[in-house]
Formats: sequence, C-alpha cells, structure tokens
Amino acid sequence: MKDRNWFQATIPQPDGHFRDAAMARQTSLTKPSGSLGRLESIAVEMAAMQGSDRPQAIPLGIAVFAADHGVAAEGVSAFPQEVTAQMVLNFLNGGAAISVLAEKTEARLCVVDAGTLHRDGYPEPVINRPVGHGTRNLVHESAMTEKECRHALSLGRDVMDEWLSYARVVIGGEMGIANTTSASALASALRVADVSELVGPGTGLGPDGISRKQSVVEAALARLGEQDDPLRILAELGGYEIAALSGFYLRAAMTGATILVDGFISSVAALVACRLNPDVRAWMLFSHASAEPGHRRVLEALDAEPLLDLGMRLGEGSGAAVAHGLLDSACALHNRMATFAEAGVSDG
Amino acid sequence: MKDRNWFQATIPQPDGHFRDAAMARQTSLTKPSGSLGRLESIAVEMAAMQGSDRPQAIPLGIAVFAADHGVAAEGVSAFPQEVTAQMVLNFLNGGAAISVLAEKTEARLCVVDAGTLHRDGYPEPVINRPVGHGTRNLVHESAMTEKECRHALSLGRDVMDEWLSYARVVIGGEMGIANTTSASALASALRVADVSELVGPGTGLGPDGISRKQSVVEAALARLGEQDDPLRILAELGGYEIAALSGFYLRAAMTGATILVDGFISSVAALVACRLNPDVRAWMLFSHASAEPGHRRVLEALDAEPLLDLGMRLGEGSGAAVAHGLLDSACALHNRMATFAEAGVSDG
Repeated sequence: MKDRNWFQATIPQPDGHFRDAAMARQTSLTKPSGSLGRLESIAVEMAAMQGSDRPQAIPLGIAVFAADHGVAAEGVSAFPQEVTAQMVLNFLNGGAAISVLAEKTEARLCVVDAGTLHRDGYPEPVINRPVGHGTRNLVHESAMTEKECRHALSLGRDVMDEWLSYARVVIGGEMGIANTTSASALASALRVADVSELVGPGTGLGPDGISRKQSVVEAALARLGEQDDPLRILAELGGYEIAALSGFYLRAAMTGATILVDGFISSVAALVACRLNPDVRAWMLFSHASAEPGHRRVLEALDAEPLLDLGMRLGEGSGAAVAHGLLDSACALHNRMATFAEAGVSDG
Repeated sequence: MKDRNWFQATIPQPDGHFRDAAMARQTSLTKPSGSLGRLESIAVEMAAMQGSDRPQAIPLGIAVFAADHGVAAEGVSAFPQEVTAQMVLNFLNGGAAISVLAEKTEARLCVVDAGTLHRDGYPEPVINRPVGHGTRNLVHESAMTEKECRHALSLGRDVMDEWLSYARVVIGGEMGIANTTSASALASALRVADVSELVGPGTGLGPDGISRKQSVVEAALARLGEQDDPLRILAELGGYEIAALSGFYLRAAMTGATILVDGFISSVAALVACRLNPDVRAWMLFSHASAEPGHRRVLEALDAEPLLDLGMRLGEGSGAAVAHGLLDSACALHNRMATFAEAGVSDG
C-alpha cells in the first residue's frame, strides 16, 4: 500500500536560478522593459517551474472529474441531477466546451468518472474509477467517509501519474450537479468569507434558489461545528470530483507540472490542496475570475491574481483552457524574440 | 483619381438577422445560458459582422505601420529615434514581439514604412510607401500637411485592399519613436480628457520626462487652438502611421472585416476613424487595456470594453495578437459545441 499521507510529502519549489536567468533574458529582449506585462512574469515563473531557459506551455493535459452530490436533493441546482452523466457522454462525444477547447489546444482530455450516479460504467476512453455513486447529503451527514475522501485524493494522483505524467502544464476541470453548493460549504468552513459571500447562482439559480442554497450551506456548517482539519472538512462537505482535483493538483506539483487553475470549484479544490500541503501553491497559475461571485474571495484567500476576467462560469476547466493561450504566447515571446544585441536595436 | 473623401463613404452595418440567429444558437448549446461570458457576445457579434452562422477568427491579417515623428526632438521618448528603423528590420527578421505572435497565429504580417527617417527603402517584404520621412515637429508647426494626411489615410486603405483583403479579422499595429506624444495630443484635441490624464510614460519615461512630455502636448494644443475638424486635428498633431491606421480601420469596416484594436496609439487612431466616420465603430473589438494610463480614457470615449488587462504597453499590435486567441476560442465554441438536443442533455 502506498503511503496514506502521500499528499503531505515534500513538494520541491521552482528553481530560483532559472527564475533569475529568465528575468535577465526578459530585460534583454527587443521591447521596453516590462512592456509585455504579465506575459513576462508568466514566462519567468514557468522557466523557474520547468528548470529551463526556454519554458513551454505544451504538452497540455486536461483531466475533467465528474461526480454526483447527495445535496442535489435539496434543490440547489438549476439543472436536474441526470445532467452529470449526460455531460460525461457529451465530453466523450466532443460536444462540450472543454471538448472543443481540448481539441483546439491539442491537449489530451481525460474524462474521469470519480463518482457519478451512473453504475454501469461509461464507454472508453472515459476513465471509470468511481469512488462511490454520488456522495451523501452534506446537510444531514458526512458527504464522504475519510476512507472515501482519501480514495478520491488518490484517484486524482493516479490520473496525473497514469495518464498525464508527460504534460508540462495541466488543467483540472469538474462536472457535478450541485457542486457549487459543496464548494461554497468548503470555502466557508475554510473561513474564506461569510456564507452569504460564497453562495451564488451556480448554473443559474434565481434569488429564491440562492437563498435556499445559503440555508443549505449554513445547515451543513452548523452540523459540522468548528473544524480545523482540512481533510476532515473535505470529507464532510466535499465531493468526489473536488477531492480528486485536490489530489491531482498535489501530485502535479510534486512532479513539477505547472497547474493552471480554472474557476470557482477548481479554485476551492486548489485551496483545499494548499491547506493540506501549502507548498503546492507555488505551482499554480490562476486562469480567470469567474462570474460566480464567491470566486473572488477564494482567489483572495489564495493570494491569486487571475489572468482573464470574461464573465465565464461554466467549469469543466473551460476558463483555464481559454487562458492557456496566454501561457503559450508568453512562452513563445520569451523564447523566440530577439535580444537588443541580436537585432542591432539601440537599448533605451 | 479616387474619391478624396473616400473615408466618409457609407459603411454597412453588421447583420442583425445573423446576430439574432447566433444568440439563439448560444442558448441552445450544452452549457448554462450565458456561462461563456464575453466569449458568447464576441461570437455573436462576429456572426453579425460576417453575415454567417459560423463565424471564423481566421484568416487573420496584421499590418504594422512605422513612421518617425518630428516631436522626438523634444526628448519625449526613452529610446533614440533610430530605433524606429531598427525595429522595422527586427519585424522583418522575425525578432520582434509582433513577428513571433504573427507566426504563432499563422497571420500574414505586413510591415509598412509609412514614413520613417530611413530614405533608402527597406528590403522586401517591407511595403515601402513612405508618405514622407518623419513628420514635422508638432510643437512648432503642423505635423503633416492636409495632403500628406490624406495620403497617409489612403496608404492604410491600400494596404487593406492590396494585401489583406482576404482577412476576416485584421489587426493594425504601429511603431514610431515619440508616437505616444502624438497620440496624447490627438486624444487631448479630440477632448477625451485633460492633458494630464492622457500623457504617460510611453516606452519608459520617468516623472521628469512625463512632465516635459505634458508641456510639449500643451504647447502643441495652444498652437492649434480650438479645432473641431478631425481631419485637421489629425494633420496637425498626428503621425503618418497613426493616419494610416485610421485609414486602414475605415477601409476594413467598409469591406466587412472585424477590426481587433490594439493599445493606446491604435485606439487613438480608432477614435480618429470614428470621428471621421462614426459607422466604423460597429466593426471594432478592443483587445486589451494598456498600462499606458491614458488608454482607459480613450477606451471610455470609444465606449469600449477591452478583453484583456495584462499590463501590456508594447504596441506593434502585440496586445491584439495575444487577444486574437480569445476570438478564435469564441468562434470554435460557437461553431463546434453540441446543442442540448444533439447531445441528449436535459436543459435547465
């Protein structure tokens, strides 16, 4: 059996020598110093992560984890619960947003059944590794046992190791009806902000639905009481796909991959990962600010500045896949622009 | 001779029928309604511009117009004036930011000598069409005669017609030492904001340099006095590359191409184009908010909401070329995602 606390193993940090060298290179390129803005700092940080003078945004690997949530019974989503499984098939058939974006970015797309209600397995190439078939209703009881939670974390690790170990950049996505409720509860329990700031419309609730969702999260928090252990909080309030994402991020960092974090739910999974092992944070870039209102508070808690702010709120890893083009541009500019000396251009 | 007021010809407007059809399609795709944020409105607007159910962000055409400015004599740039011509060669040799980005986006890159100080012509494929060899110093006299200004506008038109007529999306870029001074003066004369809000560091001036630059712009405005005619303002305070950009945008709109506007100087050229013929505006998308502080005021004057905010301030069309990936993603998602009916996914 592998070490049960594998996720707390040492995470090496990006290489300061390559960071310094990349910063020096940026000042030598034929442009006013700093004039590429955040594209410069992205390239510099990726050089440090990759231990390379010439960082690359490819190969890109995308894993989308799908699971169902017992709390859906509380009427907290604008969509019926069968949509989780229907969307797994849509990912498979190329019709979902992340399918289109994975093809466009030439990324491998791993679709993982982390625990949907569908019991019969999905056609290949879906990775059929359900931890269970839907979590329990977090209002009334623990969503997962500790054993299930550890199983889900390990699933994320295994997806990274078995399917995406070749990737220099990885994106984790999620699909699960009612999972913004779980994510809001997690962020609240992790003391990101008040419940009212962390509960939003998700896929499209109106004011009454948001109010009900807020009551659901408050009831779950009251049930849990004061709790400081992130693993326990994850088991009590999380979902299989969220725990798998946390494990995926932790393993990606251990192997030196750049993590491009998506929106609200993915960022909550990133926050859980950081609470389990703070050294994972140095491997994360944040792709976008979601329209889901709680996302900004989660980003603040992560000290994260997102790259895009386009009002997206779809999940699946879609915002990160859109933002991947910025990493690709940043690396191309860093690697291929001429220096002042090479081009015979007078420096400022 | 072509009509001398060609730039005031009728500009057709994007097609409302295709806009409505594209909006209907967006609501049928397998995602919560509105969850792709601005990527939805971009695709919808491009469908209207292209009169198509399936808009495309390619082929992309990029024209970079280079020219020198007499006002450089006032010490308003952090770089020496010879850099304009040196950078033309850098564009040609593939070492500049826009060269790298053009290759990455598979765009044709037209480099145009619109009026640099270099008198001997540049090697091919530079388009050698200088209107003059540097404008006059706008502090003391008109930067261009009206004839030169019309010539520069026509140059932009001709580049669109002769080299980029095949493009569905076009980007205009600029290179010209001291051209933020010219752009700030133009924006001030067009009453975008006070001079102090429109003068910034450009390629890297310190506080003293900015103060000197502000005095230069104020002196030019005092020389000009009250003036309402945008063509006259352009001739008095503009540059060959800025006027060429305005003409390029106007012709692009007349031919139904989507214009992806770059940063501060390009946006001032866009504003001049809008003052010459307001119907050009409907064909413009705005790529990014520049770190040059005056850009936000120019965007406000254009009622424009930029797509990116990455602290870029390089010019050359580079911010627009980076943002082009967002248009490409928006079109791919619009065209290739499955509908709820096609995928058998339950609607919300």
